[in-house]
Amino acid sequence: MMEGKLLISQMIERAEKLFPKKEVISRTSSGIHRFTYQQIGERTRRLSSALENLGVERGDKVATLAWNDHRHLEAYFAIPGMGAVLHTINIRLSAEHIIHIINHAEDKVLLVDPMFLPILEGIKDHIPTVRAFVVMTDDDELPDTPLTPVYSYEDLLLEANPDYEFVKDLDENDPAGMCFTSATTGKPKGVVYSHRGITLHSLSLGLADSGAVSESDVVMPVVPMFHANAWGLPFASTWFGSTQVMPGPLFTPELLAELITTEKVTSTAGVPTIWLGLLKELDANKDRYDMSSLRAVLCGGSAAPMGMIRAFEEKYNIPFIHAYGMTETTPLVTLSRLKSYQEDLSTEEKLEIRAKQGSVVPGLEIKAINDEGEIEWNGKDMGELLVRGPWIADEYYNDERTEGAFKDGWLYTGDIVTIDQEGTIKITDRTKDLVKSGGEWISTIDLENAIMAHDAVFEAAVVGVPHPEWQERPVAAVVIKPDENVEKEELLDYLKPQFAKWWIPDDIIFMDELPKTSVGKFQKNALREKLQEHLV
Amino acid sequence: MMEGKLLISQMIERAEKLFPKKEVISRTSSGIHRFTYQQIGERTRRLSSALENLGVERGDKVATLAWNDHRHLEAYFAIPGMGAVLHTINIRLSAEHIIHIINHAEDKVLLVDPMFLPILEGIKDHIPTVRAFVVMTDDDELPDTPLTPVYSYEDLLLEANPDYEFVKDLDENDPAGMCFTSATTGKPKGVVYSHRGITLHSLSLGLADSGAVSESDVVMPVVPMFHANAWGLPFASTWFGSTQVMPGPLFTPELLAELITTEKVTSTAGVPTIWLGLLKELDANKDRYDMSSLRAVLCGGSAAPMGMIRAFEEKYNIPFIHAYGMTETTPLVTLSRLKSYQEDLSTEEKLEIRAKQGSVVPGLEIKAINDEGEIEWNGKDMGELLVRGPWIADEYYNDERTEGAFKDGWLYTGDIVTIDQEGTIKITDRTKDLVKSGGEWISTIDLENAIMAHDAVFEAAVVGVPHPEWQERPVAAVVIKPDENVEKEELLDYLKPQFAKWWIPDDIIFMDELPKTSVGKFQKNALREKLQEHLV
Repeated sequence: MMEGKLLISQMIERAEKLFPKKEVISRTSSGIHRFTYQQIGERTRRLSSALENLGVERGDKVATLAWNDHRHLEAYFAIPGMGAVLHTINIRLSAEHIIHIINHAEDKVLLVDPMFLPILEGIKDHIPTVRAFVVMTDDDELPDTPLTPVYSYEDLLLEANPDYEFVKDLDENDPAGMCFTSATTGKPKGVVYSHRGITLHSLSLGLADSGAVSESDVVMPVVPMFHANAWGLPFASTWFGSTQVMPGPLFTPELLAELITTEKVTSTAGVPTIWLGLLKELDANKDRYDMSSLRAVLCGGSAAPMGMIRAFEEKYNIPFIHAYGMTETTPLVTLSRLKSYQEDLSTEEKLEIRAKQGSVVPGLEIKAINDEGEIEWNGKDMGELLVRGPWIADEYYNDERTEGAFKDGWLYTGDIVTIDQEGTIKITDRTKDLVKSGGEWISTIDLENAIMAHDAVFEAAVVGVPHPEWQERPVAAVVIKPDENVEKEELLDYLKPQFAKWWIPDDIIFMDELPKTSVGKFQKNALREKLQEHLV
Repeated sequence: MMEGKLLISQMIERAEKLFPKKEVISRTSSGIHRFTYQQIGERTRRLSSALENLGVERGDKVATLAWNDHRHLEAYFAIPGMGAVLHTINIRLSAEHIIHIINHAEDKVLLVDPMFLPILEGIKDHIPTVRAFVVMTDDDELPDTPLTPVYSYEDLLLEANPDYEFVKDLDENDPAGMCFTSATTGKPKGVVYSHRGITLHSLSLGLADSGAVSESDVVMPVVPMFHANAWGLPFASTWFGSTQVMPGPLFTPELLAELITTEKVTSTAGVPTIWLGLLKELDANKDRYDMSSLRAVLCGGSAAPMGMIRAFEEKYNIPFIHAYGMTETTPLVTLSRLKSYQEDLSTEEKLEIRAKQGSVVPGLEIKAINDEGEIEWNGKDMGELLVRGPWIADEYYNDERTEGAFKDGWLYTGDIVTIDQEGTIKITDRTKDLVKSGGEWISTIDLENAIMAHDAVFEAAVVGVPHPEWQERPVAAVVIKPDENVEKEELLDYLKPQFAKWWIPDDIIFMDELPKTSVGKFQKNALREKLQEHLV
């Protein structure tokens, strides 16, 4: 067989050749813009050429600080297309962490949305590897900025070569992209994606039983393009010729509902918070929108509450697909779809399956282990999920924390799961959050979900607290809804029928708000810290 | 990224783990049998183990002479799963050619359906590399045969290891399969498939806009498993958990219609002759069958006549998908699906698109060249189709004819095509059949289709015949239907409005039958030979 290297450039080349008239609809700070793949292709080639003119060489890192728009899409292809490495910076990281990752990656050029210039201006004296700033602006004039040298993206494109030929003498294992995890503790860890990994991931995402990305789709990735490749959708959608809708900066639920309605979006992807917001908007202004084009709402990042899945499916008839992955996995690992013979189950049984994270996509392998070895696939035993395959990272970039997560050829995800007989995984906890009580494991997520299902509860977090007899026992921190009231004993009584006796928290503490990370996850380490002596 | 080798064993392993209850329905000479993937998986492991016990080593060729049934499916996974090479022998080849390919491949073990024992018995003294014959029979007793040593497939399985572990320390570029082309002249040419090639082919075949092979599918490959991997369907269907229906030996249109009806087949694949037969059966006994489960009839091997596509779509509401490939291409290269914006075209315009061979699937590249270089994608210019990519052969196995077909990193397909602006290819001829008249190219296939559309014509072949002035001119050989009649002048008048003047054949010759190859294609070289002096 021919070598037929798996390079990312083939994706944009196919879009140019087979889908020149299909569109990318891009919302930027100046409004909605429409580009054909022919235009995007030419602009991508110009961007590669422009970066080359700026001195970017093969293997160099070029970073983006940007929302989801057409220029970010061009960067997705132009940077790996010239043999450089696309480093998507999470603009929600602290300035300190942004400094760290720019230096750690040794970024040479930064492509930046005008609204993020203040971030860079604040750290400009601490990022010595950066040789040029390129402002992704629609305006003719560059904003005033002390950054130097600074260029206008559009001006660079104007002067660049529209017929730039993408570099083909790469190895398919060469780095194409890079992303840092938003760690809850310590510095962000870097993950490097290869051309091969991203290409295979795109194929798996396009499978009929996976993302089923199709030419007939109108795909709107709401998940930011700085989060694990926007789950790979910009790559797959371009390769397979889908129309793409890029929602741009600071979007609202109202804006998303409008875009779905006007652009007839068929497939969209984001974290539960986004869909919770969309649901509220639909409930409030149902008549204003038309959701009938949607064939899939992909949801990942954290577990979607059952009630939300139910609302999408039953109230709005929108198929809801739960997925699981992480920065280290490009990211798609599992995806929840019913098997054909599960279609006959009751609505409740089906919802329960869809609320799980699904089964492993073709190309990867999973297993889960606990202290006794590999767990059985019985839907009960809990173990840490391990993943391996061609789009799974095998290290953190120049980071000694590699050895904690990558062992014996497997990625240790740090997620505790059960796996049922159908191969469907259910995330029950993070390894570090799991309560280990007298040798048994207690899932804090299961407890939290149960507590949060109580009408009076706004949010809840459960942590393991040191205990003289049982090593650890669960304690719940609960925030009550405004104008609601509930006593500790009432809540405990509410939980008792749902769990084994030894799962019930030793205490419930009421708080005004829970500590959270920059991306809105419960900051359990802070809570544990606070409750260190609570049960002694 | 992890290496994550692309090995075929992952497909059957996934079916065992995720789809243990799903079924393979297999028709053998003794009737219909049903096996779950759990059973198929265990039997596959036993077969690997049994072959190991017979002395098969990594890299050895193990050949099959078999129809489409569960044992052949097991061989598809057991042989590459142990690091050996699956050589599927086309049982329609002449004895002389079968001797040649067994010796050329140096097959070590032959797996054979009982009905093909006579073939092997006739050539047994000419295949010295073969060390064992395994009879794939349902019967307890082996048939009497002079072949030696001879084993019963089922007996070997009984004694073998059900927990055999597939070999993982292979290179993904290692050979996994082998198939010989049924050449019209000369000896068959061998093509070797790699694990990587077959795996990537399976992913591309599973994409939503390609074969869209899904767990919810009931896939019936009618194309024989000795023809280019049954177009890759057994691999993809197993990997993605589809139910499979194997139609077994000597099936009839009636049997196929029955299987589609009773097993609710959703997707099937075969050559035009098969579908012509099915159409006739449906026309004759419509009420006996239910075709409503079918979502795709994949058709390849040669061009399907427009009338047949129309009948499937309009009369029976069965979506008909034209595809193109060859033994050298694993085989999928192009597949005809309408783009979303083509759905608004008229029925006739859509049929015309579907009658073409479609556009290139993700992962491959095509172009077409003629004497002046690469042709434009304008739907008019003709050129030889070139293909490259990771599941395209780069040589014929130990064969000096390699250099004729593989040049500059491309496979020269020998097919003359036009490519339109949408990237849709249309096969207009074989390079060797094309008529080159005064520097212009004339498609014999277009002429033949036009002549065969005449009510009185049963079949027709057009060949280029040496001409003193124009180098070559087309001459048509025509077989008239029984009880019909048509004169040469009438036929020529019928053609004139449809073609440029210089395309019209210089002569039409009426024959009782046309010379054909073993697989039913017109043997144009014999016809050309005969007409050598016709226009001098």
